[in-house]
Amino acid sequence: MGIEVLLNREAEWLMGSGPDSGVVVSSRVRLARNLRGIPFPGRAERDARVRVREMAEEAFEGSALMQGAIAVRLDEVGEIDRQFLVERHLISREHARGDEGSALAVGEKEIMSVMINEEDHLRLQALRSGFQLGEAYREVDALDDDLERAMEYAFLPTVGYLTSCPTNTGTGMRASVMLHLPGLVLANQIGQVIQAIAKLGLAVRGLYGEGTEVSGNLFQISNQGTLGKAERDIIEEIEGVINQIAEHEKKARQALYRKNFRALEDRVCRAYGLITSARIITSKETIDLLSALKLGLDFGLVEIDRGTINDLFIVTQPAHLQKLAGRELKPEERDAMRADIIRRRLKERGQPKAPGGGAPPPGAAA
Amino acid sequence: MGIEVLLNREAEWLMGSGPDSGVVVSSRVRLARNLRGIPFPGRAERDARVRVREMAEEAFEGSALMQGAIAVRLDEVGEIDRQFLVERHLISREHARGDEGSALAVGEKEIMSVMINEEDHLRLQALRSGFQLGEAYREVDALDDDLERAMEYAFLPTVGYLTSCPTNTGTGMRASVMLHLPGLVLANQIGQVIQAIAKLGLAVRGLYGEGTEVSGNLFQISNQGTLGKAERDIIEEIEGVINQIAEHEKKARQALYRKNFRALEDRVCRAYGLITSARIITSKETIDLLSALKLGLDFGLVEIDRGTINDLFIVTQPAHLQKLAGRELKPEERDAMRADIIRRRLKERGQPKAPGGGAPPPGAAA
Repeated sequence: MGIEVLLNREAEWLMGSGPDSGVVVSSRVRLARNLRGIPFPGRAERDARVRVREMAEEAFEGSALMQGAIAVRLDEVGEIDRQFLVERHLISREHARGDEGSALAVGEKEIMSVMINEEDHLRLQALRSGFQLGEAYREVDALDDDLERAMEYAFLPTVGYLTSCPTNTGTGMRASVMLHLPGLVLANQIGQVIQAIAKLGLAVRGLYGEGTEVSGNLFQISNQGTLGKAERDIIEEIEGVINQIAEHEKKARQALYRKNFRALEDRVCRAYGLITSARIITSKETIDLLSALKLGLDFGLVEIDRGTINDLFIVTQPAHLQKLAGRELKPEERDAMRADIIRRRLKERGQPKAPGGGAPPPGAAA
Repeated sequence: MGIEVLLNREAEWLMGSGPDSGVVVSSRVRLARNLRGIPFPGRAERDARVRVREMAEEAFEGSALMQGAIAVRLDEVGEIDRQFLVERHLISREHARGDEGSALAVGEKEIMSVMINEEDHLRLQALRSGFQLGEAYREVDALDDDLERAMEYAFLPTVGYLTSCPTNTGTGMRASVMLHLPGLVLANQIGQVIQAIAKLGLAVRGLYGEGTEVSGNLFQISNQGTLGKAERDIIEEIEGVINQIAEHEKKARQALYRKNFRALEDRVCRAYGLITSARIITSKETIDLLSALKLGLDFGLVEIDRGTINDLFIVTQPAHLQKLAGRELKPEERDAMRADIIRRRLKERGQPKAPGGGAPPPGAAA
């Protein structure tokens, strides 16, 4: 089974089915692991990197969690395929540039995945829809146990897991959530919230991680420190912070609804009108309009399946469009195809209903 | 019968039914007349102005063309009503400021109308949908004959009709057409065309005449000179020029269709999506979107009754909204009501069909 399967199979984290999915799009826990006695990927010779890949692939066979996994060797796929995997959050931009040692294994519904020979020998990931950090940790921890039965990790009892970059040493864990915060953005409170998050030692990034711009009101929040704390404690700390942010977001949305219902409705309805009508649309505009639709969904202003909206964030990215087309596309061809796909998906998969425009809520200013 | 009737009755010139109505929205011929022996309105005492109004009203009774006309004394109506009449192209901005001598008579379907004590004692107007300058002239000329039987005009055989402003002296006639020229605007050829029109001695103005900005790709073109030429000759000259402009416009549209169908379709479909979805919309945006819909209609990209679109240009103006609401509205209230009315009218009166987005025409670039 190759990459093509991913194009037509639904990823669990995009289904929009998890807890608190109005604010928390997805939860992810990733573990960095290295094999004892083999140089880390950045310093390893080609042979050593290939050996690590083969050892990992063998180890997967012994894990029930990786049964039926799709295996991808990054030297065997083209540029568009690599970009496609980045867009699906399965590999990093750095990993996309990998050689024959670089590989990826993706489990059922894209919940579990492992990057081989990225910055570390192994990067284990569990990705879930909604607010499910605890569940994601439980799963990636189980995979970690399975693999540890087949391979010996580089580990020091006094320090923890050893990693290429010292910031990952210790638990080797990074837990992150993708938040949709249009309320805080529209209320101009997002700056304050981001400052507060940074003070708590958490990092804030855009849709595509480190160094990417925030768009579509989507924010990735993750822990920075991995040393000297138990995994469960780190997860609980993040959960506490996320709960607070979600609370602020909900209050900001309620205030919008109460104080300026007409403007909110206008924003959502215009987004619906534009995205279902456009014949040419850029990726940037798409993400902004999808964000408005997502907000409208949470207020019951539009009736579209949440999973369809989440899926459109990803499927409208450049490499996804080119995979669907089966060929390289010029930017203007992508803009046309993007518009066509959005209209088709909203028609087929969602139950798009023209926004109702009912009476404003009791007590709301018109 | 008062002004209210105009609010619910269709004006012929907005029906979009006349010849060449894809390019020529409406045709208008106006005659300036003054009564012999009475000072012109700018110099007349109150009594003289009132006498002119009474004489005119009596004369109307003898004309079959003015039977059932609505009579409005501008000193008896409020600010919103005056503005409403300006928006319907029945009185000028100057006339809206008139005193008890200032009046208006409006015939069936708003085809014929007479302003009393504007700049001249009488301004007779015939307004028709589409390209019907000849017909409009025939009608206003017939009304002129009717009135001349009851009143004596200020007239010099060597010069013609005398008027307050010398630029109107002679025939006292101004013939104008309202053109919709989105093709020339999008093709960046409009500047050239306007220069050429000016060289031919014709004036180019916006939707609301002298001193108003061009919006919605609507251009009013009228003759400047009224002296030393027969009415029929002036009309024929303008007709010739308009035919040429219409030809250029059609060619520009065909080129758009052929060379960039996708962008054209995108513009029309987005306009349709926005105008049927917005909950808050300004007058300026409305006119721009209606212009795009009008263009889409001419290309068969949307199915909306042309009269409904034409009517929306006028009915979404501030005073019309306030007349419909029956009270004064704040600008933000107007923006909300405007959006509501547009959605309702497009649903009730047009047969709005979501743009088809069919295949591009044979040979068109995608």
